[in-house]
Amino acid sequence: MRVLGVDPGLTRCGIGVVDGERGRRARCVEVGVVRTPAETELPRRLQVVGEEVERWLDRHRPEVVAVERVFSQHNVSTVMGTAQVSGVVALLAAQRDVPVAFHTPSEVKAAISGSGRADKKQVAAMVTKILGLDTPPKPADAADALALAVCHVWRGPMLARIAEAQTRAEALAKNHRNRLQEASRAARRSGEKPSKGHRR
Amino acid sequence: MRVLGVDPGLTRCGIGVVDGERGRRARCVEVGVVRTPAETELPRRLQVVGEEVERWLDRHRPEVVAVERVFSQHNVSTVMGTAQVSGVVALLAAQRDVPVAFHTPSEVKAAISGSGRADKKQVAAMVTKILGLDTPPKPADAADALALAVCHVWRGPMLARIAEAQTRAEALAKNHRNRLQEASRAARRSGEKPSKGHRR
Repeated sequence: MRVLGVDPGLTRCGIGVVDGERGRRARCVEVGVVRTPAETELPRRLQVVGEEVERWLDRHRPEVVAVERVFSQHNVSTVMGTAQVSGVVALLAAQRDVPVAFHTPSEVKAAISGSGRADKKQVAAMVTKILGLDTPPKPADAADALALAVCHVWRGPMLARIAEAQTRAEALAKNHRNRLQEASRAARRSGEKPSKGHRR
Repeated sequence: MRVLGVDPGLTRCGIGVVDGERGRRARCVEVGVVRTPAETELPRRLQVVGEEVERWLDRHRPEVVAVERVFSQHNVSTVMGTAQVSGVVALLAAQRDVPVAFHTPSEVKAAISGSGRADKKQVAAMVTKILGLDTPPKPADAADALALAVCHVWRGPMLARIAEAQTRAEALAKNHRNRLQEASRAARRSGEKPSKGHRR
């Protein structure tokens, strides 16, 4: 399985491609970072990052794109730009029919290091070890992109099965709710409404 | 000036096109809303909204796209999707060399109704009056998209000048800072460091 991991960001956007199967050694195909200057206006920054992501998608043809799931609880001043980049990445993948998986930072850390609370340095060290690299990828955003890709190689299929089961369960629950509501409406129409006012 | 206004959203994304000049009656060219079902996965939802925005951009060829500036203080559960849509819209405009202007909800309300605290109903009523429509555009997201476009027609050129002045002022300040740092470094190198240790 070839996974393209993206650690979304405007100032630095980490991108990394990993080949691997669960149970086998994963391999780093390419890793890098796209930078855009803060002085450049937002639409142009999104375009620069988008063009680079498109080049990586077309060059490596990944089966899946793994993107960090952004939470609004984080640093308020940067979270909007990060969310906008993640939207752009998801769009560009969807345009190429490449599925997109979102993983939370703690999912990634837990998958890579066994602890959801590992710091950036520990994640970079584990990525270096797992992929058999000579030195830790720099900057941290590049290491994070590889960590996302490794996380997906290892946990993606399982997480996808969980998500599928959840969707099925939700659809079932919705179906039940609808049938209950229908039955209740039918009961009301036929005058058998079990409310106080009808106890004559 | 032709402005395409977008009230970004995944469940409902309002789009409206307005022709106008400051001081003349503005005209509604087209208004609508793109809906995507919550069951559909995120990348596909972004793609559906993106394709519709592209159709509007290509059909109306606006001079500017006006998008609501998203704040993370808002509803946490929807703000990420909204930010992602705004990123996609900015990208698609940038790909066509159409400038993008971001306006905050209170800027829009203040421009349209004179008060930054107008509610959705008041904004819709004012948009209806300003554009001489027979009935208020529905849903509220469609009215909001027109409000954004009208706001930009009326206030855009002024806001753009303010933003330009700010950028210039920041560049000047940065330049001054750099020159001060350089002078300080040069002073230190020549041994004239004005610190206590040098008062022999």
